[in-house]
Amino acid sequence: MTRDEALALDASDPLAFARERFRLPDGIIYLDGNSLGALPTAAPAALATTAERQWGDDLIASWNKHGWIDWPTRIAAKLAPIVGAKTSELLIADSTTVCLFKLLAAAARARPDRKTILTQKRNFPTDLYVAQGLADMLGLRVKGVDPEEVVGAIDEDTAVVTFTHVDYRTAAFYDIRSVNDAARAAGALVVWDLSHSAGAVELDLNGCGAELAIGCGYKYLNGGPGAPAFIYVAEQLQDELRSPLQGWMGHAEPFAFVDNYRPAEGMLKFLTGTPSILALAALEAGLDTFDGIAMRELAAKSRKLSQLFIDEVEERCGDNVALASPRDSIQRGSHVVFAHPEGYAVMQALIARGVIGDFRAPDLMRFGFCPLYNRFAEIVGAAEILANILASREWDQPRFHARSKVT
Amino acid sequence: MTRDEALALDASDPLAFARERFRLPDGIIYLDGNSLGALPTAAPAALATTAERQWGDDLIASWNKHGWIDWPTRIAAKLAPIVGAKTSELLIADSTTVCLFKLLAAAARARPDRKTILTQKRNFPTDLYVAQGLADMLGLRVKGVDPEEVVGAIDEDTAVVTFTHVDYRTAAFYDIRSVNDAARAAGALVVWDLSHSAGAVELDLNGCGAELAIGCGYKYLNGGPGAPAFIYVAEQLQDELRSPLQGWMGHAEPFAFVDNYRPAEGMLKFLTGTPSILALAALEAGLDTFDGIAMRELAAKSRKLSQLFIDEVEERCGDNVALASPRDSIQRGSHVVFAHPEGYAVMQALIARGVIGDFRAPDLMRFGFCPLYNRFAEIVGAAEILANILASREWDQPRFHARSKVT
Repeated sequence: MTRDEALALDASDPLAFARERFRLPDGIIYLDGNSLGALPTAAPAALATTAERQWGDDLIASWNKHGWIDWPTRIAAKLAPIVGAKTSELLIADSTTVCLFKLLAAAARARPDRKTILTQKRNFPTDLYVAQGLADMLGLRVKGVDPEEVVGAIDEDTAVVTFTHVDYRTAAFYDIRSVNDAARAAGALVVWDLSHSAGAVELDLNGCGAELAIGCGYKYLNGGPGAPAFIYVAEQLQDELRSPLQGWMGHAEPFAFVDNYRPAEGMLKFLTGTPSILALAALEAGLDTFDGIAMRELAAKSRKLSQLFIDEVEERCGDNVALASPRDSIQRGSHVVFAHPEGYAVMQALIARGVIGDFRAPDLMRFGFCPLYNRFAEIVGAAEILANILASREWDQPRFHARSKVT
Repeated sequence: MTRDEALALDASDPLAFARERFRLPDGIIYLDGNSLGALPTAAPAALATTAERQWGDDLIASWNKHGWIDWPTRIAAKLAPIVGAKTSELLIADSTTVCLFKLLAAAARARPDRKTILTQKRNFPTDLYVAQGLADMLGLRVKGVDPEEVVGAIDEDTAVVTFTHVDYRTAAFYDIRSVNDAARAAGALVVWDLSHSAGAVELDLNGCGAELAIGCGYKYLNGGPGAPAFIYVAEQLQDELRSPLQGWMGHAEPFAFVDNYRPAEGMLKFLTGTPSILALAALEAGLDTFDGIAMRELAAKSRKLSQLFIDEVEERCGDNVALASPRDSIQRGSHVVFAHPEGYAVMQALIARGVIGDFRAPDLMRFGFCPLYNRFAEIVGAAEILANILASREWDQPRFHARSKVT
């Protein structure tokens, strides 16, 4: 595809208007929104207002006057159309790790006669580590199987399955319904990790029988570095489950300051301590970038962007790179991975040329596509620069081999 | 004391210069920094820089370029002189609740043959709820005794003691060393909650044999609403303890993305997921308000402020209020509590007149004193207004009896 053809696609893109909701630096092609979403245009003012007009001017009274006390549920409600859930099934809290611990522990304890936490091998590390830590504490075992074997591995000893919907490396996309159905038939629960799904693919948690899920606020949801995470608990499970991490904000009457814990109704019991209001303000600006966006349309653009990238890279780079993501867009999330033996150095060379993706060991170059701000012309431009770098071996310089602390 | 005498005290106050480090609204006497510290003057710019120049301009590269990856330890190091610990013993992470859960679980599991978590009755609710939730999960029991009976209640079944150093209601101040000594003699561990101490009283964790502590970032440390908390683990315990909440940020090699958890060295193992960088930026501005401040001098001013308030209130209000804090300043933290049968309404009347304290059921009016920004003239002014409200029964209006969601 020529640059002009890509520009024509952008001109007719019904989501093109959303790019203005972000402040992206000039001269950069940002394909790493799957690691850290771009800055929403409204975020700096939201932070300034929260800090100066609320914290600064109204101090402690802000908890009532600006409704801070309700922000974890009020802001979570904005996720409802993004993930296909009821507003009463969502909460913003803590980090993805802590939220996963809460739900995994709650689920495991709701199935006290079962001893297995089942998960996919090569799951995102935090998911594995949380499961291992919990199993170690409760005397359970963690069983890891290949993702396509998870459904068959659910049995009468499975207390809970923890499964990442879109693989953080390959972008492989798993069917939520079939895992939920198999688990329900076996009496097990499933906790979905939607970190690489929410905000990038179409989700219908209610429609596909999902009961428990968590997800990340700082990737496709654009909530800022280390943004709080979200928790989803289907209505029918809210009474049964109990968070092991009991804090005063999750008490039925936090301001009664009584000695004995009594869980709040609904999602509020999954709150722990006082949430960061500043982090919530930024996350709200991130969620507001989805205002009025149909997720079906967004997901369609995601598939077009990633398919165009695959086509252009394969056309221009030939055998120099190998696709490490599913070729069928229906089986992919919103990023694409190409393998190259010197992938780390190639990615550094790309970054030096203003194309920002990231690298995952041993040889994977990841490129994420955010339909709210990425343009078709950027896809063609990135493929062109990659081809150029590979053809010229521009990556083969000592400065591109120097390892950074964070890859 | 007359207003002029108080102004003279302010004029000769060696800490008076620190008031400029905060942006406080005109016409307000803010005596609730023990609930939410005031806005540091530098915080809005720190937030704007972090959001716009870092997140916005440098996107994912900020983790290396701006050293975000090191912020939880770099910023924690600023606490070292405030709490009397080594920089290598401190970490900023999560919320107070989550940090307490981590340390309490780690400590309990380091004493597997013991079944009791010992704590003080009427401890801050989160402390009790976290202990109850953990005990419920691990098959332990929580034993609550009166604070002065804790030392005597430590026995061979005590795995861990969780103790709040300064009581959130009465401001009663407990001796750290005697509890540590008794626990060590009995083979138990102690987790101190320093939420109402850090930044307001002189602490010497290393000097008094403290091994484990957590504390709040948004009270006297001025880190903003829901600021991240801090964790202290004495060097000699860092190898032995293991956090039950295992996340990828606490792994020895987070960017190796391996399937099995291996804890990082030192404090880093107590990290879980990705921390909120925006919340950390605000907390850093809060900790910087302590730059160059001798904690001994700060604690001395705290005692003078609170003593002056007690003297002035008792002189001006007589039997209308009853002191509910220790009278001896050596046994008090940095707030003072007066009881009044209609304390809620009286506090609302005070707030309406610009004197901001808070209320704790059933009848306690709390007034916190922050030596970095509170002035002696404010103390006299607050006492005068309180006396006025009580004498005129100004509080006895329906609008002051209406309950807010957050008290």
